[in-house]
Amino acid sequence: MHTNYADDANGPELDVSRREFLGTAMAGSAALALGPTVAPTLLAPDDKDAVMAAVAPQHAQTVKMLQDWIALPSIAAENKNYPQGPDYMAKLARDAGFQKVQVVPTKAGHAGVFATLDAGAKTTLAIYMMYDVKQYDPAEWSSPPLEAKIVDKPGVGKIMVGRGATNSKGPQMACLAALHAFKAANKKVPVNLVLVCEGQEEIGSPNFGEVVFKPEVKAALEKCVGIVIPLGNQGLDGGVTINLGSKGVCELELVSTGEKWGRGPTKDLHSSYEAQVDSPVWHLVQALNSLVKADGHTPAVEGFFDKVRPLSAAQKKILADAIPKKPEEATKKGMGVSKVFGDEPWAKSQERLVSQPTINIEGLVAGYTGPGGKTILPHKAVAKIDMRLVPDMTRDDTVAKLKAHLAKHGFGDIEVNVSGGYDPTETDPASRLVQAQVAAYQKAGIEPVLWPRLAGSWPGVTFTGAPLKLAAGQYGLGHGNGAHAPDEYWLIESASPKVAGMDGAVKSFVELFYQIA
Amino acid sequence: MHTNYADDANGPELDVSRREFLGTAMAGSAALALGPTVAPTLLAPDDKDAVMAAVAPQHAQTVKMLQDWIALPSIAAENKNYPQGPDYMAKLARDAGFQKVQVVPTKAGHAGVFATLDAGAKTTLAIYMMYDVKQYDPAEWSSPPLEAKIVDKPGVGKIMVGRGATNSKGPQMACLAALHAFKAANKKVPVNLVLVCEGQEEIGSPNFGEVVFKPEVKAALEKCVGIVIPLGNQGLDGGVTINLGSKGVCELELVSTGEKWGRGPTKDLHSSYEAQVDSPVWHLVQALNSLVKADGHTPAVEGFFDKVRPLSAAQKKILADAIPKKPEEATKKGMGVSKVFGDEPWAKSQERLVSQPTINIEGLVAGYTGPGGKTILPHKAVAKIDMRLVPDMTRDDTVAKLKAHLAKHGFGDIEVNVSGGYDPTETDPASRLVQAQVAAYQKAGIEPVLWPRLAGSWPGVTFTGAPLKLAAGQYGLGHGNGAHAPDEYWLIESASPKVAGMDGAVKSFVELFYQIA
Repeated sequence: MHTNYADDANGPELDVSRREFLGTAMAGSAALALGPTVAPTLLAPDDKDAVMAAVAPQHAQTVKMLQDWIALPSIAAENKNYPQGPDYMAKLARDAGFQKVQVVPTKAGHAGVFATLDAGAKTTLAIYMMYDVKQYDPAEWSSPPLEAKIVDKPGVGKIMVGRGATNSKGPQMACLAALHAFKAANKKVPVNLVLVCEGQEEIGSPNFGEVVFKPEVKAALEKCVGIVIPLGNQGLDGGVTINLGSKGVCELELVSTGEKWGRGPTKDLHSSYEAQVDSPVWHLVQALNSLVKADGHTPAVEGFFDKVRPLSAAQKKILADAIPKKPEEATKKGMGVSKVFGDEPWAKSQERLVSQPTINIEGLVAGYTGPGGKTILPHKAVAKIDMRLVPDMTRDDTVAKLKAHLAKHGFGDIEVNVSGGYDPTETDPASRLVQAQVAAYQKAGIEPVLWPRLAGSWPGVTFTGAPLKLAAGQYGLGHGNGAHAPDEYWLIESASPKVAGMDGAVKSFVELFYQIA
Repeated sequence: MHTNYADDANGPELDVSRREFLGTAMAGSAALALGPTVAPTLLAPDDKDAVMAAVAPQHAQTVKMLQDWIALPSIAAENKNYPQGPDYMAKLARDAGFQKVQVVPTKAGHAGVFATLDAGAKTTLAIYMMYDVKQYDPAEWSSPPLEAKIVDKPGVGKIMVGRGATNSKGPQMACLAALHAFKAANKKVPVNLVLVCEGQEEIGSPNFGEVVFKPEVKAALEKCVGIVIPLGNQGLDGGVTINLGSKGVCELELVSTGEKWGRGPTKDLHSSYEAQVDSPVWHLVQALNSLVKADGHTPAVEGFFDKVRPLSAAQKKILADAIPKKPEEATKKGMGVSKVFGDEPWAKSQERLVSQPTINIEGLVAGYTGPGGKTILPHKAVAKIDMRLVPDMTRDDTVAKLKAHLAKHGFGDIEVNVSGGYDPTETDPASRLVQAQVAAYQKAGIEPVLWPRLAGSWPGVTFTGAPLKLAAGQYGLGHGNGAHAPDEYWLIESASPKVAGMDGAVKSFVELFYQIA
């Protein structure tokens, strides 16, 4: 699994970074200057002004805290820096003002962190953080990935280069620094906070349920109006999108072997024998071919669409409002695509993007894969698949249908090895969380684009699904790029008035807390 | 191209070596002890005895000559040891008694060698040799690949380990040493000889036609009764098969890209966009699926079988005689196969092996091929294909039909990149060459198995096709293994009386020259 919560499984060689991915959804959205001045609200306007005023003076301290955090990379796949990582996360929470902080062990030994900040407020908001980061190869970086140096990036500004800078220590530090600003201004946070952190996000959050559903954690989350995932949401045009849900995903391998099939060779064989011996590769090709219709696109697995809930009238309205903000040509160019499926009109194609579940082939591997050829009849063939799911599909039900389909069509021997995935999420646009996010962005002069459903995926169903059913969504101003890639960065001082630097990101969280309250 | 003349494209990681490949065809064939005593023939019996008697005394010299040759590896893919390789080949020919020897340049700079030995005989025989060898990585060898050390291999005997030992310097040296034996015994070779050598066999013989069809070479070959390719034909049971032809082969890549298609992405895209963007991988899967029938095996390319000439009654008789010498269970076990295509009776399955042309997938490569998954929509997908051809199919005609098929079915954008191949070969079992080979093997106490057609391929069509139309075939006693692999070896002193060592291999060529004459 290479999935982070924005489902960015992109390695360095892929041009689609999480930032670009979100950027595509934001292209063309309106963006205004981010001034430091914020209009007064009904709730404690003077307090907020004081807190906002405390952000700039603590800038150097915020930057230093982020650098120190980046210097300690916890990598679950390498079991690196545990328990140092969760202990540090707990310290960061305590320093930010959380009164109760506990490290929550998991079976795999990569602990979570649970913390609460009781401000005596009426409203409680949950915050999600991940303290782990993706692997890195220092040789691929122009600046050492743990030194978090600040360098100038022409046209963007002063950026901090380091592993985890944007995914996700930068935006998370913006959120924590907002709490430091409250302390510096000696003001009470206007909402109570519940913090849940994990250290296995980069390996697919296999044990996060142990943390979230621990009785006292679950009880605390049940009191929340929603959960916020800190993220630098701004593209270089300054625009911001609020996704009101996301597709689910299921990643799996289909594996055809002579051994399991009982036909074909059990080891690679000289290809001349293909005349009298069955091929596990042709077997896989035929199985794959059965998964899509003649259009080479629409899933043909029996019952695949049974649980698909069509977009509601409200969702269609939101979509119709947003589509003009996603210009066709620029978006296609960003994707490297000249024609969309079926040559459909742009609006219809966007509706398909939002509403259609998919079966995608991520990769094929069989036999000889090097330069030139090699005359073998391979004993094994593998297709790497991801399926994107829309409400009310579930991962487990879809996998069951895939298996039933393969068995029915004579491919029951093909292994279906699920490596990860989760169900879709949905958050009501009328929820306090979304309303507060919209209001907070508007306070910063940005009219966010509401989007009915991210076509990508994040494992938010832990929060949005039963039993918690929380409103959930990424939030935050600021900008970064290169998640999972070399030279990952987080913007510290912006060259553009439309894009927030670190202080703007911090303020966006101050604003959110007031808007939620 | 990794094709040698026995079409063994097997690298170290493949269990099917050329030896095993041939061994499968030989399993169960009768094998008797190889005594040094040879029955007198009508032609110069005393001469032959004298020549045979000269083989053992020159054993150490023969071994030394082979070791010296192995120490000089010419590798066309690396342009290594040219012109040293062809110069050395020319020297070996001169030393063996060829009176006229010339290096024949080719455009690529990897020269051929052409030589003639005029013995004043009535009959002229051609001999093919390759002086180039496959690449090697010394780290993978248990004995340095250029040192050609003689080591003991339990159950096999004393073997010489080195690159080119069996493919093909060992058997070729056996042929040259036979000529040295004539010199040592001061006897005339009973046939005139024409030698054609190349130094690009391991890269698919791209320029061999320049050598063979040079006017004086062609003129010399036209006088020959056939052409012999030295090969250590014996399996460890001592058996020998004479293949009366071989299938042709065509290796190619089918490449599906968003760029050529004009649909789908032109660079890898986040897989969430698969909902609205076509996939070059699905496109390839559909194209591949169209190439075979619903049985997942029989080629479905329009016209693929049009030029297939059914086996003649004579070929069927040869096959029927040979099939009992290929035991079903042992052969299947050697292939790692429990069931053959269609669960056909063994005899029918063997007939299919000999007579059916194939479309095989050697390899599939698309998108992410590493461990786990990666959520991308790949912009490119490649299938590596080999097609085996039977008479009277031709490589070029079959490629043309494949292209027409793809175009007709909506896959005209998929690139068909042919990397190599050649037409099938056939040699008449009544030819003097085959009759002489049978007689020579019988003189050594071995009843060879005649087999109508090798299911594998070798580029002998240069000789068997127009304009030369020579009888052609591999010949030679002796044993080796590991062609293209680490620890390639050639048997020097056999532990089994059924299998010839170096001297037995040398004598098999002495015998052949007399049988041809």
